[in-house]
Amino acid sequence: MPTVKDVAKKAGVSVATVSRVLNNSNKVSEETRQRVLKAIEELGFKPNLLARNFRKDKSNLILVILPTIANAYFARVVKGVEDTARKYDYGILLCTTGNSPEVASEYLKLIERKQVDGAIIASAKIDKDAVLEIDPKKIVQACEFYQFLDTSCVLIDHKKAFFDIVDYLIKKGKKNILCAIGNEGIPSENERKEGYRQALEKNGIEFKEENVIRCSYGWAEIYERLKTLLCTKKYDAVACSSDLMAVGAIKAAKAVGLKIPDEFAVTGFDNIMISRLYEPSITTVAQPMYDIGEKAAEILINSLENPNSFSKEKFILPHEIKTRESA
Amino acid sequence: MPTVKDVAKKAGVSVATVSRVLNNSNKVSEETRQRVLKAIEELGFKPNLLARNFRKDKSNLILVILPTIANAYFARVVKGVEDTARKYDYGILLCTTGNSPEVASEYLKLIERKQVDGAIIASAKIDKDAVLEIDPKKIVQACEFYQFLDTSCVLIDHKKAFFDIVDYLIKKGKKNILCAIGNEGIPSENERKEGYRQALEKNGIEFKEENVIRCSYGWAEIYERLKTLLCTKKYDAVACSSDLMAVGAIKAAKAVGLKIPDEFAVTGFDNIMISRLYEPSITTVAQPMYDIGEKAAEILINSLENPNSFSKEKFILPHEIKTRESA
Repeated sequence: MPTVKDVAKKAGVSVATVSRVLNNSNKVSEETRQRVLKAIEELGFKPNLLARNFRKDKSNLILVILPTIANAYFARVVKGVEDTARKYDYGILLCTTGNSPEVASEYLKLIERKQVDGAIIASAKIDKDAVLEIDPKKIVQACEFYQFLDTSCVLIDHKKAFFDIVDYLIKKGKKNILCAIGNEGIPSENERKEGYRQALEKNGIEFKEENVIRCSYGWAEIYERLKTLLCTKKYDAVACSSDLMAVGAIKAAKAVGLKIPDEFAVTGFDNIMISRLYEPSITTVAQPMYDIGEKAAEILINSLENPNSFSKEKFILPHEIKTRESA
Repeated sequence: MPTVKDVAKKAGVSVATVSRVLNNSNKVSEETRQRVLKAIEELGFKPNLLARNFRKDKSNLILVILPTIANAYFARVVKGVEDTARKYDYGILLCTTGNSPEVASEYLKLIERKQVDGAIIASAKIDKDAVLEIDPKKIVQACEFYQFLDTSCVLIDHKKAFFDIVDYLIKKGKKNILCAIGNEGIPSENERKEGYRQALEKNGIEFKEENVIRCSYGWAEIYERLKTLLCTKKYDAVACSSDLMAVGAIKAAKAVGLKIPDEFAVTGFDNIMISRLYEPSITTVAQPMYDIGEKAAEILINSLENPNSFSKEKFILPHEIKTRESA
């Protein structure tokens, strides 16, 4: 297959010049442009994907907006997006917001500027107005769901998932169960709290607001807070909103001398690698992370390629309890 | 401070129209454009960073090319890049290559198309010709170093780092030390192998090629290979090229009943979170991941803003041995 170098050689110009022609740069004289186009035709050269689509005023790039990449959860979601996008000849650009709605809005502008064709929003905090300004066909929500947006979304049933894991803990004989979840601005965290409340209620256990710990997803904050709380010996389990939180909880239980899972059980959420690798291994809610990314990419690309057949859809993918040593 | 909404209201147009004017879209009539520009002036509205710079034919975006985001190492490097870029009003886009040189080359085209102003290449496998076509002022290499490129770079001394950790193992009384490193196409891995060889040599231990295990950076492959190798009881340590490899090695040693670190010592590389969290905690070479990202961003932005003062520089940042329980 002829390359851009073959074209350059045949046309007697530099590779950069050929590239300029492919990219419709106005820095090339008409005569040179014709010479390059002739060489392209004679050699049967097929410009690559990105250059090709650029000429159609289409970037063939999808932006994935993440809160952070310092969480293996998003790495799996992104892998699903990437593998799918590749099949359809789309490239993927990632950006992280640190969960700042303002930063997310800045990056969303790349759609309007046609630097990307569309975006998958997996960042939990967004500015409603900024997103509403964008054609809903060009956006898919992944992992989270904001009712007020007219975009399609792909996620698990966060309420049912947390219900299931708390119900599991209760069936294992736990009664004084703490709930460690992320902050209130994140829709899925409120869903999870409701799942916790309903599981207690179904099993005749009183829900107490003080047993809900709002904290960051990492291991350190929950570790510090539980080290104090667990000294009271009032609790026999904690259901955490991430696997890293579960690691922090296990470390805290060990630090105060509680046996896991008999004296204190711990569950995680997501099923990232550390939940399997850690000792004790962590009982967790498996999210189909890869599938979420795959489905989000499929929906987005489909609506970008066939904008007339767009309809807003909500895809709820199945979750699964992975029982391991920690609960 | 007036917002884009205030401008829209004053000009009697939609927010989207103001945005189009700011982005020099040709979908706006000249009359509307003038009305919006007048409103902007009267209100003293300052368009935000991205829109502002777009008009200067500058994206104010930097691309970071990574092999993967499924490695906490890169998450820290990227955090350093992002925090620094933000100070200088640059946004960051990430892309992953799966260590495919072809994919890296595709994404590098975003520089020529001015979709990004420059790139930090942290992906170990690149296509020499594709990178050589780009103005070296617009690229910084991070984490790895290719001699043939005329770009600046920021990294640690991989040879000395591996020398130090193997020397440490020998000082701890280990003699039959395996070396588990990544594949041969990655410059830093060959540097590390040389460091291993020199440390053995300095201590009068014979280097044997068969003691060098080339494998992936994850925990699974080294785990499988060591489970077999360790049954021979010929080895008393392994120096690994990543912390996840070290987790795999610890799991293998435990599986065959070896006591860590007395019967079998394990060291990692990078100092990602799991090396501190794992039990036993992992002795490792700390790379200044955040600092590498920070420095790379500083150098790149400096050469983008002051192209005339560009000079190719190589920054070697210090590494450090973190001694923990595994060795």
